[in-house]
Amino acid sequence: MGKERINPTEVRSVTEVGTWDLEADVVVVGCGCAGACAAIAAAEAGAEVLVAERASGGGGTSANSGGQIYMGGGTPVQTACGFEDTPDEMYKFLMAALGPEPDAAKTRVYCDESVAHFHWLEAHGVPFKRSFYPVRGGTESPTDDCLAFSGGENAYPFDRIAKPAPRGHKPQFTGSAGGFLMQRLIAASERAGVRFECDARCDTLVVDAREHGRVVGAVLWQDKRERLVRARRGVVLAAGGFMMNEEMVKRYVPVIWACEYKLGTDGDDGRAIRMAMGAGADIVRMDAAEIGYPVGPPDKLLCGILVNGYGQRVINEDTYLGRIGQEGIFRQNGELFLIVDTSFYEPTVYGLHAAFVEETVAELEQSIGFPTGALQSTVEYYNRFAAQGTDPLFHKSPELLRPLDTPPYAAFDLRVSRQDGIGKSYCAFTLGGLHTLPTGEVLSPDGRMVPGLYAAGRTTSGLAKGGYCSGISLGDGTFFGVRAGRSAAQRK
Amino acid sequence: MGKERINPTEVRSVTEVGTWDLEADVVVVGCGCAGACAAIAAAEAGAEVLVAERASGGGGTSANSGGQIYMGGGTPVQTACGFEDTPDEMYKFLMAALGPEPDAAKTRVYCDESVAHFHWLEAHGVPFKRSFYPVRGGTESPTDDCLAFSGGENAYPFDRIAKPAPRGHKPQFTGSAGGFLMQRLIAASERAGVRFECDARCDTLVVDAREHGRVVGAVLWQDKRERLVRARRGVVLAAGGFMMNEEMVKRYVPVIWACEYKLGTDGDDGRAIRMAMGAGADIVRMDAAEIGYPVGPPDKLLCGILVNGYGQRVINEDTYLGRIGQEGIFRQNGELFLIVDTSFYEPTVYGLHAAFVEETVAELEQSIGFPTGALQSTVEYYNRFAAQGTDPLFHKSPELLRPLDTPPYAAFDLRVSRQDGIGKSYCAFTLGGLHTLPTGEVLSPDGRMVPGLYAAGRTTSGLAKGGYCSGISLGDGTFFGVRAGRSAAQRK
Repeated sequence: MGKERINPTEVRSVTEVGTWDLEADVVVVGCGCAGACAAIAAAEAGAEVLVAERASGGGGTSANSGGQIYMGGGTPVQTACGFEDTPDEMYKFLMAALGPEPDAAKTRVYCDESVAHFHWLEAHGVPFKRSFYPVRGGTESPTDDCLAFSGGENAYPFDRIAKPAPRGHKPQFTGSAGGFLMQRLIAASERAGVRFECDARCDTLVVDAREHGRVVGAVLWQDKRERLVRARRGVVLAAGGFMMNEEMVKRYVPVIWACEYKLGTDGDDGRAIRMAMGAGADIVRMDAAEIGYPVGPPDKLLCGILVNGYGQRVINEDTYLGRIGQEGIFRQNGELFLIVDTSFYEPTVYGLHAAFVEETVAELEQSIGFPTGALQSTVEYYNRFAAQGTDPLFHKSPELLRPLDTPPYAAFDLRVSRQDGIGKSYCAFTLGGLHTLPTGEVLSPDGRMVPGLYAAGRTTSGLAKGGYCSGISLGDGTFFGVRAGRSAAQRK
Repeated sequence: MGKERINPTEVRSVTEVGTWDLEADVVVVGCGCAGACAAIAAAEAGAEVLVAERASGGGGTSANSGGQIYMGGGTPVQTACGFEDTPDEMYKFLMAALGPEPDAAKTRVYCDESVAHFHWLEAHGVPFKRSFYPVRGGTESPTDDCLAFSGGENAYPFDRIAKPAPRGHKPQFTGSAGGFLMQRLIAASERAGVRFECDARCDTLVVDAREHGRVVGAVLWQDKRERLVRARRGVVLAAGGFMMNEEMVKRYVPVIWACEYKLGTDGDDGRAIRMAMGAGADIVRMDAAEIGYPVGPPDKLLCGILVNGYGQRVINEDTYLGRIGQEGIFRQNGELFLIVDTSFYEPTVYGLHAAFVEETVAELEQSIGFPTGALQSTVEYYNRFAAQGTDPLFHKSPELLRPLDTPPYAAFDLRVSRQDGIGKSYCAFTLGGLHTLPTGEVLSPDGRMVPGLYAAGRTTSGLAKGGYCSGISLGDGTFFGVRAGRSAAQRK
């Protein structure tokens, strides 16, 4: 981080500010989905809003995403597609899936106001087709279809905890819809009268010690010069996470650095998190991260079994892919193998290659280097019940259960350390960040509000405190972005 | 935290200080092992030293501990007892045992200078008997004997990673030696001329904005009034962790709050961590914690097998108890069971009661509520190899391997949620804290030193970044306490 022009934690005292170069009621730092929604909401609440974006245009990591937004409780799409859902069922699911011990207050308001948020998005130009796309694992539709199961809602153990409903909502756009989503949100913010300053990196915050350290502005770097922007009511930080900052990742959540694909843009360097800390903010759950698991569709691979480095089965293969990735990286030392047989294995499936192929399970076990007899014991137990159509251990869906008994047997090597193979395709991003109230105020380590400072999106620790579902990042970015923008606009 | 007189993060500006009530070159906050060693080292480096302790006398959580200190690389005790050890073997072990990804710089200097540290302790009145006490699991000797394996050095997988050597050194005192250790260290600090202010809680730090936020003193609360103490060279924070602060534990590492026994004193409220954050410090690995596992000796129970909520074996039973506790709480959702048979089970062993007793493994499996066939499969596999004296899965020591085949079979319920039984005896303390250099300087989120601020012990993130060994807390408290005290004393 030696290359940074100034240290973000070294906040500027307002007493050092001569004249302001720019002014607004609310200054939003970053223009991904959280920043755009904060800007729209603040402007619509009557504030003069300025967005500072370090790239040449808005979009951020949101624009590179699939576009899925986690919403439920009975949205028009859910209803049109025949799925019943309530805020309570959504709440039960999220409290179980996003833990350990998610933020109950944030989760509650997110569920209770999810249908309203859906309408807010549509009213701001984000359309959703009234259609369902059946896909396992949590990926979004390759079509312009909307609704999908995106967090293992219909798989063990969540299907026993809450009534399953699909809640991943993709805007109506063929394929990855993140860019489309951001175009629409940026257009809405322009309509709302938001002013944009692009190629304007926020270097640090301006604080007023005479007002208990109130944040009153920001120091921007634009056109190779410093521009001081006054924020009459508040600053909203919405500048992404810290996945692209090697030092920060290694300091807070080192095991994910082994994942080859770091999901983010250059902006995800944790700078906003650090400047907030300089102004007195706390950081929480910095150890949380989402991990994309490297084996996606086709579904038939889910007939295989996922085992750890000891040849033990560890999770139901039909759950959300991100849940499998987290299990592998955080609980299994980065070691997972997918064991298949020839009844559904093809030498090349979507570019994946089995690393080991043997005529017997015993030989496969030996080739991989598993403990003697371990995989044989696992397969014997699995097969015995799979033949009866049950999975007493992890309750995989019956249609994916069949004994592994057609030689040759094969193993996909999913170890994250195997940078020569599938293991290199793990994809990760950070979930930890600033501690905020559901209304967007940033909190200090004492639980006090840092006056004048708000945040949303991956700059904060949002809904996902450990577990994750597809659609949660755009979900809490847009949802809590709106709330942070409103709170800042209403501040006196 | 609403009861706190002032928020620790609200540091006092030196411009608000009229006159100082007290002065010293180095002010040490807290008098556990880290504070005492910092005070001694600073005084011996020529500084005038004042220790502020919030209790009525020094000792802190260190005084309530067993007294074991992790040292090696060829200490006189190791040599006298016939154990070969080198700094390199010690380093290899600690880098494997204290991860993921321990601090290599801290670990390196800790190993290289461990023998010197042993001599430093003896020179300051802490005696160590030249004797070895053979005990499994990592507990200290009940006698006045010194040396013990305290981190699973001689068990899988560490016995394959580094040459095993015992490195837990208990001072020569019968039974728990923490109080004795602290008596000796406090006596040494008195001899070195350290001044003590007891019943003096440090409420916040005093900083000088004109000197880049340099820490120049502290605000104490003593005799129901505020006393301002100037620190001409620096302040050393050595005031424990945050295990006793429910809000902080739930914010940073919520799963451990379920552990009934919180290891610490009232002082472990995280106040020092928060006041340092107010002065610009970073916090790292706040998710790390040590978990004491509730089943100790007798060793014969180690002939049983530890299984998770799915009836799967998860770890070698003969490893360090703290490692088992961490496995259970962090990786197995707080669910562990110890399965035994009547060849070594007694209805009451050290006050432990088996929760389930059945004539067959199948019945036991059903009573516990394990998935059908799961425990049977686990026991069948275990027994098959145990009969041959091997444990291909986790390489438990051969003398503890025998088939579980003598009915009735029993299970100790070690679920942390079982507050009515053994599960309630999990014991936890926090390992996360301030980010420091090996020389004790406190770092900001930008990796800058916070001028004038030093820290050691559980207030910092020390050697243990996830894993743990008995003796590490007193080990890095005393070792890095010395270094922090010296650094502060040498500051100009």
